[in-house]
Amino acid sequence: MLTEAVREYLQANRRRHLQELFELLRFASISSQDEHEADCLACAKWVAERLRRMGFSAELRPWRKHPVVLAHHRQAGPAARTVLLYGHYDVQPPDPLEQWHSPPFEPVVRDGAIYARGASDDKGQFFAHIKALEALLETEGQLPLNVVFLLEGEEEVGSPELEQFLRANTEDLKADFSIISDSDFFAPGLPTITYALRGVVHVELTVHGPRVDLHSGVYGGAVVNPLNALAKMIAAMHDELGKVALPGFYDDVRPISEAERRAWAQLPFDEERYARNLGTEPLGGERCYTVLERLWARPTLDCHGIVGGYQGPGSKTVIPAAATAKISMRLVPDMRPERVVEAFERFVAEHTPAGLTAQVEVKAKAAPVLVRPDSPAIAAAKAALAEAFSAPVALARNGASVPITELIQRVLDIEPIMMGFGLPDDHLHSPNERFRLEQFYGAIVASAAVLKNLAGL
Amino acid sequence: MLTEAVREYLQANRRRHLQELFELLRFASISSQDEHEADCLACAKWVAERLRRMGFSAELRPWRKHPVVLAHHRQAGPAARTVLLYGHYDVQPPDPLEQWHSPPFEPVVRDGAIYARGASDDKGQFFAHIKALEALLETEGQLPLNVVFLLEGEEEVGSPELEQFLRANTEDLKADFSIISDSDFFAPGLPTITYALRGVVHVELTVHGPRVDLHSGVYGGAVVNPLNALAKMIAAMHDELGKVALPGFYDDVRPISEAERRAWAQLPFDEERYARNLGTEPLGGERCYTVLERLWARPTLDCHGIVGGYQGPGSKTVIPAAATAKISMRLVPDMRPERVVEAFERFVAEHTPAGLTAQVEVKAKAAPVLVRPDSPAIAAAKAALAEAFSAPVALARNGASVPITELIQRVLDIEPIMMGFGLPDDHLHSPNERFRLEQFYGAIVASAAVLKNLAGL
Repeated sequence: MLTEAVREYLQANRRRHLQELFELLRFASISSQDEHEADCLACAKWVAERLRRMGFSAELRPWRKHPVVLAHHRQAGPAARTVLLYGHYDVQPPDPLEQWHSPPFEPVVRDGAIYARGASDDKGQFFAHIKALEALLETEGQLPLNVVFLLEGEEEVGSPELEQFLRANTEDLKADFSIISDSDFFAPGLPTITYALRGVVHVELTVHGPRVDLHSGVYGGAVVNPLNALAKMIAAMHDELGKVALPGFYDDVRPISEAERRAWAQLPFDEERYARNLGTEPLGGERCYTVLERLWARPTLDCHGIVGGYQGPGSKTVIPAAATAKISMRLVPDMRPERVVEAFERFVAEHTPAGLTAQVEVKAKAAPVLVRPDSPAIAAAKAALAEAFSAPVALARNGASVPITELIQRVLDIEPIMMGFGLPDDHLHSPNERFRLEQFYGAIVASAAVLKNLAGL
Repeated sequence: MLTEAVREYLQANRRRHLQELFELLRFASISSQDEHEADCLACAKWVAERLRRMGFSAELRPWRKHPVVLAHHRQAGPAARTVLLYGHYDVQPPDPLEQWHSPPFEPVVRDGAIYARGASDDKGQFFAHIKALEALLETEGQLPLNVVFLLEGEEEVGSPELEQFLRANTEDLKADFSIISDSDFFAPGLPTITYALRGVVHVELTVHGPRVDLHSGVYGGAVVNPLNALAKMIAAMHDELGKVALPGFYDDVRPISEAERRAWAQLPFDEERYARNLGTEPLGGERCYTVLERLWARPTLDCHGIVGGYQGPGSKTVIPAAATAKISMRLVPDMRPERVVEAFERFVAEHTPAGLTAQVEVKAKAAPVLVRPDSPAIAAAKAALAEAFSAPVALARNGASVPITELIQRVLDIEPIMMGFGLPDDHLHSPNERFRLEQFYGAIVASAAVLKNLAGL
């Protein structure tokens, strides 16, 4: 339980905390775009400086493209518990820009929510942990446990090589528990512990045809058009029932247990409302599963963009020399990224038409995650959520991928606690991303509470 | 036959003629891109001014986006024949820019060829007519017939609404013959009269799914992905044998006569060399036809670009709210664009999956062309080509579309003479477009000769 002093401190500092979050949200820390490398670095420096002011030893560790912020607060002493807090300071590209109602990197509060790219994914969430630590330090003069902060800058490009980082820093990252706040409530008013995540394999499939782009009148009918052919290959990746058609793709998929089916069927899921929010019926994926089953426990394959030919305004009737599809597959327990890549490459090799060559480049991969939902740490987190939001707590899976989670589990051998504070309609990765004010302030309270609870385990 | 004086004049002015063509090629008159509207206008003005200096009455007629240059030289008098010369001063976009060996709008001569966007398609070709007229005027003091010059600026966007222009100006465009030089020799050293062109229908097919772009982890499996679905629709447009699968698509296709099959089989077509130039085997289209048959007498359907999702560098795992395919179909005699559009729309309606809506926007259309290969005008053109290039002349079809040709035939009721001077490897619409010097200079001679020959008919 939190002291009254902590609660009062948080209440009294709401406005300042929001202003500070706005500072953090103004960094256009888009990790996938080279031109934003400086923004990523500036954002990492800003966060490290905040932590330093609170008594953390915080450093920027250069890594791949964007540095990892690694910070420690060890004044609780060797006998105390240690918690590893994770967050990512990088964000998705904001486009299509014209669909934003306010600029993505100029945060505003509108109708009780903070609008900005990264508000919910993930700056608002990890910043809540920082403010919780600040509140404990300011009111109690110390932290109840030792804290390691790990903030990466490449989550939105799939955390490539983060595994190597963890392996190279196992001593620095040693902890008893790990909290990852990069997910959401199942529904408004229903705090949620996530006990499973999908993994992901992101690839680029390129098909090469003629040496140069060709006039479609002069050559149309003589050459295999890489765009036509790529469309055919993508089309063949699903069967008529919405199943992924890569041979072997489902081999390792863990079936959904009857207990889970029953539990999920009892969650407050309103398909009509869900469709209204989407602007379309939820008719994707495998017909024979419910929406939640498809989102949480069934793998998918999606195309995210096709590059090749002419994409500007108006027309240019070329047969392109090459065409590339950006494709990701979401994996569920117990699928392994390596086996999925193999299945994909085999499929491509078998479906490349004569007259073309194809190549597959793996851009990112992360294994799926499944944790025990009944550990003492999870109980501590549930109690903290219940205390902060005055509501019972749900257990849910999540269809998204947070690559660090599986690495914390497998490489560092720490059980991850996934307590996230977003809401399902926060528009992650979309225009008008937002984080509700009540979720931000509640997250700070819950974060302070879970640290206290874990310290006592 | 040309006089020795004309030949000598042309020989003596080669260098200047090339320099003037370079001026024309420096205009980035890309009709499909709004930002080049001023370049198109400047290019049209430049050409009109050239013609005026030669005694033409030349005006810019505002039309849709880019003006039509309409010019007359009527000093041969009412008893003389009149020829309508056609060309287009607009060019295709030059991208992918990085594949050009020299900038597309800074013409250079390399290895006996002029390299620039528009060198062959179509600035070099219509400029040859201008220089032929200049040579006749300078050496003979007059033209042997009346000349109407029609230069449009929207050929590369499919000549939309050009039909209305012709209908609105039938009196101004009245002529006995029409020469269109926007095609090529069948092979180097083999001057060619083209007696058929394919038509074209260019459409944009857009599928709409969710209201906004969605996170593929959070929503993947719940919604129908517009890009996946668009790929499936495009894939369904061809069957396994390379035939276009739109019901009714082939209904009006005129079969290839046995005489044509035999004639085409005797043309010097080296499939191995053709493949080497392409950098790929000519394996596209319908398996049961030869390459020339597929290019000249069989319709096609090609995708030129797919827009939607994320096309920048790196990854962004979105399910896009919408996706658009740019698709064109090349039509052969006796297909009608309207019926093809109907077939396409019917196919789309039948193949739009539940959860998506689809719309088809027709961007351009042109009917196919077939002319009598044995008219006196064609004989005059053959004689001129033989004289200029000292070689026998072939008759060929061409797979490309020159929308004006069918309009000249149908709306103005003038038989088009398609004598083009490009070579098959001029890289039209591709990087490093070129026009061989010998073709440029030969085109001027042939153009002067055909004007003389037509005047005598």
